[in-house]
Amino acid sequence: MLKEKIQAQIKQAANHLKEKNPMVGSITNSVTINFVANTQLAVGASAAMVYLPDEGEAFAKNAGSVYINMGTLLPIYEETLPRTAKMSVAEKTPWVLDPVAIGIGDLRTKLIKKLKEYPPSIINGNASEIISLAHSWELIDEGDNEGPRGVESIRLTEEAKEAAIQLARWTKGAVSVSGEIDLITDGEKVFYYRGGSELMERITGFGCTLGGVNASYAAVSSPLIAALSSSAIYKLAGNRTVEKTKLLGDFQAEFINQLSLATAEDIANYPFELEEV
Amino acid sequence: MLKEKIQAQIKQAANHLKEKNPMVGSITNSVTINFVANTQLAVGASAAMVYLPDEGEAFAKNAGSVYINMGTLLPIYEETLPRTAKMSVAEKTPWVLDPVAIGIGDLRTKLIKKLKEYPPSIINGNASEIISLAHSWELIDEGDNEGPRGVESIRLTEEAKEAAIQLARWTKGAVSVSGEIDLITDGEKVFYYRGGSELMERITGFGCTLGGVNASYAAVSSPLIAALSSSAIYKLAGNRTVEKTKLLGDFQAEFINQLSLATAEDIANYPFELEEV
Amino acid sequence: MLKEKIQAQIKQAANHLKEKNPMVGSITNSVTINFVANTQLAVGASAAMVYLPDEGEAFAKNAGSVYINMGTLLPIYEETLPRTAKMSVAEKTPWVLDPVAIGIGDLRTKLIKKLKEYPPSIINGNASEIISLAHSWELIDEGDNEGPRGVESIRLTEEAKEAAIQLARWTKGAVSVSGEIDLITDGEKVFYYRGGSELMERITGFGCTLGGVNASYAAVSSPLIAALSSSAIYKLAGNRTVEKTKLLGDFQAEFINQLSLATAEDIANYPFELEEV
Repeated sequence: MLKEKIQAQIKQAANHLKEKNPMVGSITNSVTINFVANTQLAVGASAAMVYLPDEGEAFAKNAGSVYINMGTLLPIYEETLPRTAKMSVAEKTPWVLDPVAIGIGDLRTKLIKKLKEYPPSIINGNASEIISLAHSWELIDEGDNEGPRGVESIRLTEEAKEAAIQLARWTKGAVSVSGEIDLITDGEKVFYYRGGSELMERITGFGCTLGGVNASYAAVSSPLIAALSSSAIYKLAGNRTVEKTKLLGDFQAEFINQLSLATAEDIANYPFELEEV
Repeated sequence: MLKEKIQAQIKQAANHLKEKNPMVGSITNSVTINFVANTQLAVGASAAMVYLPDEGEAFAKNAGSVYINMGTLLPIYEETLPRTAKMSVAEKTPWVLDPVAIGIGDLRTKLIKKLKEYPPSIINGNASEIISLAHSWELIDEGDNEGPRGVESIRLTEEAKEAAIQLARWTKGAVSVSGEIDLITDGEKVFYYRGGSELMERITGFGCTLGGVNASYAAVSSPLIAALSSSAIYKLAGNRTVEKTKLLGDFQAEFINQLSLATAEDIANYPFELEEV
Repeated sequence: MLKEKIQAQIKQAANHLKEKNPMVGSITNSVTINFVANTQLAVGASAAMVYLPDEGEAFAKNAGSVYINMGTLLPIYEETLPRTAKMSVAEKTPWVLDPVAIGIGDLRTKLIKKLKEYPPSIINGNASEIISLAHSWELIDEGDNEGPRGVESIRLTEEAKEAAIQLARWTKGAVSVSGEIDLITDGEKVFYYRGGSELMERITGFGCTLGGVNASYAAVSSPLIAALSSSAIYKLAGNRTVEKTKLLGDFQAEFINQLSLATAEDIANYPFELEEV
């Protein structure tokens, strides 16, 4: 019943994204910036990227949604990130945060704390990053958190569940924890998506691009539906890619093929599990 | 007659580029910087990229040509762009301007106005960008211009014709308006190239890389011949790519294959239409 | 005898890299940053990239190794590069220097001179860059050095031999001169690797990524063994790639396939020549 309602909303989001082709403005790391743009285009959005504060604000005012990914921080981001997030909230433009490399460096730590004031519509990260963010925002106790180990985390998604729920309750948005199993929550329900390929851990950018795709769907649907649609298309495209190739160098291009070929129905019908909390 | 003369010059440009392998220095956005370098290498140039003012000036002094693409501006570009453009003009080094995202942000607006003082050899952009630039430089009246909508424009190339002609008359160079139909003008004649694939709108960087290829040919030929050669090889490679693949993820690699395989004769023989103005 | 000992060490390095999956922290140019990350992942490392001084220092303290590539310098690198190198030496974390574009711009020249104080474990460059670096550090006489011509050098590897030997004696590490023939030295022995493809000169990033792979192996072996392992896998993967494709656009993905498929035995058995000096 609820599942069917959600599937209908995912289908609508996927169709709207391709029909409306909204502009998604990103401030994102230079390692995967091209891959982020091309995945956003593959799912139906338009993509633009900037570094400067007033350009981030221009996105917050005029774009369908905004994506802030905290990898490869530049000095100017001390202004760009808070101003863009603040304006996004003021303009009710959905914005997505990916706290890449949380815990490394003074500027990132300072910015992370500051961004608590401007709650993102969706938070996207691996389990380590989500746990660290919930600690940084003082939403969960320290416990036995060891902190993140680089960008590719080995921490299990399930461990991040409590952190994700508390973050979602703070932001009143959605939180997406990506990994072997993707976990998405709005603070009341928890959704699980299985699938994809372990090769996605051995190629840079599947986390960053999932954040960019989250922002794409957020331009045409609620945060929760956007996060569910994104995990559905990622797991689906991952499964289909690994049927075509198991070679590391060929994987990325085939994945973009599969993102662009997935129909709204395929995405909506991708299986998920649902749990009330 | 004129057509044959132009075809002979295009053929010569294509041959010279591969034989002389000139160094093209670029200051270009980080989204498509790798694709720009690889397309420049595929057509026969050497590629190098920098951010800093005196490094841009070093290109202006020593490179075969310079490419300035205004996407993803950094704060230091307030110095880098005018100094590089000024030195290029002083040293008579051909330089190409791509006014990506014109209209977004104070620094870009300020830089665009400043660059009018150092006329580029070739201006490369989509229809919206060319119209906006001509307005910014006060070469055409405001009229019904709605301003650009992100980097992928839906405005028709034909609408940009008057803007392109006025820009070319100001710079005494060439202006290239890319789109479903490419329009190139030196202010006296207008050339049209048809072909390519609509998939090129759904992958990031075909506009930026066309600018980089314009700069490559500008190192070995006149601005007009460089712009014509670039549109010819882009439409040709686009046609050949779409015969090989219609998949979004595979398109870019195949396009680079086709750029590198195109012979000087293929490029010169690509059909164009010509109109006196 | 010595050869067999070296082969055993290369085999061990290749196995350890895949088993231990060390984090390699890079400060590298934006042109090839994605390719650097994906080649590091393909050989078995984890990859992370930053721009800011204290983040570079965090890598120096916590990563398995550090890679500094001097292309596309940002203003903040005036602090980031010396502080990262200094901390790497203090923490005994292996670090690799690629002096890309040495000779262009005041900041690069100043930084190059400064980095002499913090000897890198491995220096990676083409022949021109290695000769220029040895001059800059006043380890060889000026002689008939014409300076580098862009990033793709035409200078023969053999000419850089004396420069490489002097650099290795200064750093007490290894120096890798890449080209048609790769030359690696620890200041006492000189090793030569032949093979690969001339197509690797016509695609951007094979030099930069070799530096990143050098850093990957340096996290699990001595500088000399790391440099030998890197050239072995690059020549091997280059040979195998060119058997699969001679197309410029397809080359990079196939090369990553081949990097990931090379076994420790394949790498160790790749032929090299050895000379005492």
